[in-house]
Amino acid sequence: MPDAYHTELDWQERALHYGDGLFETLLKFQSELPYWPDHYQRLARGCERLAIAPPARDWLEQKIAEASAADENAIIKIIVSRGRGGRGLKFPTDARASVFVFSYSWQQASETVRTSFCQSPLSSNPELAGIKHLNRLDYVLAGLEIRDRDDIDEGLVCDSEGILVEGLISNLFFVKSGTVYTPSLERAGVNGIMRSKVIDQLHQDSIPVEIGRYTQSQLLDADECFLCNSVRGICPITAIDDQKFGVGDLTRRLMSLLNMPPINL
Amino acid sequence: MPDAYHTELDWQERALHYGDGLFETLLKFQSELPYWPDHYQRLARGCERLAIAPPARDWLEQKIAEASAADENAIIKIIVSRGRGGRGLKFPTDARASVFVFSYSWQQASETVRTSFCQSPLSSNPELAGIKHLNRLDYVLAGLEIRDRDDIDEGLVCDSEGILVEGLISNLFFVKSGTVYTPSLERAGVNGIMRSKVIDQLHQDSIPVEIGRYTQSQLLDADECFLCNSVRGICPITAIDDQKFGVGDLTRRLMSLLNMPPINL
Repeated sequence: MPDAYHTELDWQERALHYGDGLFETLLKFQSELPYWPDHYQRLARGCERLAIAPPARDWLEQKIAEASAADENAIIKIIVSRGRGGRGLKFPTDARASVFVFSYSWQQASETVRTSFCQSPLSSNPELAGIKHLNRLDYVLAGLEIRDRDDIDEGLVCDSEGILVEGLISNLFFVKSGTVYTPSLERAGVNGIMRSKVIDQLHQDSIPVEIGRYTQSQLLDADECFLCNSVRGICPITAIDDQKFGVGDLTRRLMSLLNMPPINL
Repeated sequence: MPDAYHTELDWQERALHYGDGLFETLLKFQSELPYWPDHYQRLARGCERLAIAPPARDWLEQKIAEASAADENAIIKIIVSRGRGGRGLKFPTDARASVFVFSYSWQQASETVRTSFCQSPLSSNPELAGIKHLNRLDYVLAGLEIRDRDDIDEGLVCDSEGILVEGLISNLFFVKSGTVYTPSLERAGVNGIMRSKVIDQLHQDSIPVEIGRYTQSQLLDADECFLCNSVRGICPITAIDDQKFGVGDLTRRLMSLLNMPPINL
C-alpha cells in the first residue's frame, strides 16, 4: 500500500515553489502535547481554506511521537503542503499532500520581552488572514529590522495602513482601564491558540475584551501589555522601543493560569 | 573550495519553510535566452529588496546551460532563496543562498486566451509588490477557481479592493480610444519583463500609455485587450467570462514585433 502522504523532499514540492501549504508549531512538554486538539483543529481549518485534504489526526500523532521520541520536551513543527508538481495553476486534483514533521530542542525562554515596532508591513489578504500558511516573507522582512539588535526580543508588526496586528511570532494584548484589547485578524495575522485561551480565560473571569483596529499610540498608552504563543505562553512586554512597562497584575494572573509550566513572577 | 551556493535540497531550506526567496521563469528559444539581462536584473533587484546576495550572473548562465543542455527550446525556472536554517527570525547573517535551476519542456501555446475574473484577491504589500517572490498562495487560491474549467485559459486577479492587478501568470493591458492602460503594480503584482518591453515599444511608437488603478468595468469597456509574459509573449484576450473580444490592430502589431517567434495572426 502506498503511503497516504509524501514524507520525503522533492524538487517539485509545492511548498518550495509557491509556499502552497500550512504549518503548526507546538510544544511537547513533559511528554504531553498541550493544546494538541486546538492545533489540529486550526490545521484542519487551514487545509479547508486552501482546499487541501487534512492529514489524519492519528497518523500525525504517530509521526510526532517518532520525530520527538528521544525528548520529553521539544518544539514540534508540522508542514502540510498541497503536494508535488504542476507548474503554476496546473496541479493535479488527485495529488497527495506532503506532510513533514520536525522536532527541535526546547529551552525555557526568558519570561519578559523587549519589543520594537517594525516598519515593514504585513501583507493584507482577508482570504489568507488567520490561518498559519507558509507565505511568511512579510514577517521575514520585518524580522530583518531587529535581527542584529541584542536589546530586542520580538518585533511588533502592523498592516500597511499602520494598524497593529501582532508580534512576529506571537499575538498581542494590551490592557487599559480594566478592559483588554487585542487586534482583529481579519486582514492579516495568525489566529493563535494561546490567543484563544487568553480570550476564553478573560470571558470566564468576566473581564471585558475588545477585538478591533488599534494604533501604535493606543498600545503605548496601555497600563500593561503582553504577547503570547503556544510554545512560550504569555510573555509580559517590558519595553516597546524606548518606553518601559511594568508587569501588570492581569498579565501575572494569566501567566500563572496558562503558562506551561505555570510561572509566578 | 566549497560551492558558493547551496544547490541541493535540505529540510531546513527557507524557501520551504517561509517562501523566503525569489524566482524567475524564462524562455530558452533557439538556444538563446531572450531578455536574459532583464531577467537577471529583476532577480538582482528582488535580492536587494530581500537582502539576499544575488548569485553571480556567469555562474547562473552556466547552470542554465547545464540544466537545459539537451534542448534548443525550454522553459527555465530559477529559484533563489536566503538559504538554510534558522527557525523564525534567527537566521544566520552569513548564510549561503540556495540557487536551484530547473528546465521544463516548452511547446508553443495557443496564441489567444479566454479569461475569467477570479474572486480570490491578491495580497497587498507595497514592500513585496513587483518582485517575483516565492509567496504565491494568493495566486494558487485564485487559480483553484478556474482549474477545472476547460473553457478558461487564464484568470484575471484584483486586490481586495477590487482594483485590477494582472493575470495569474501574465500582465494585463487594455486599449480604449487609442490610449493603452495597464494596472499599477505598487501594492500587488509582478513587474513583468514583457510588460516593460510593451511599454517601451508603445513609447517608441508615440502611443499614450497610462499606468493606474482600474476596475473590471473599465476593462470590459475596452476596444481590445491582451496579456503578456516573457515565455508566451503577447496573447490577445478573446473572452472575459461571457464577453467576447476581437484581436485588435495594436495587439496584432505588438505580437509581430515582440513575440518569440514573431506571430502574425
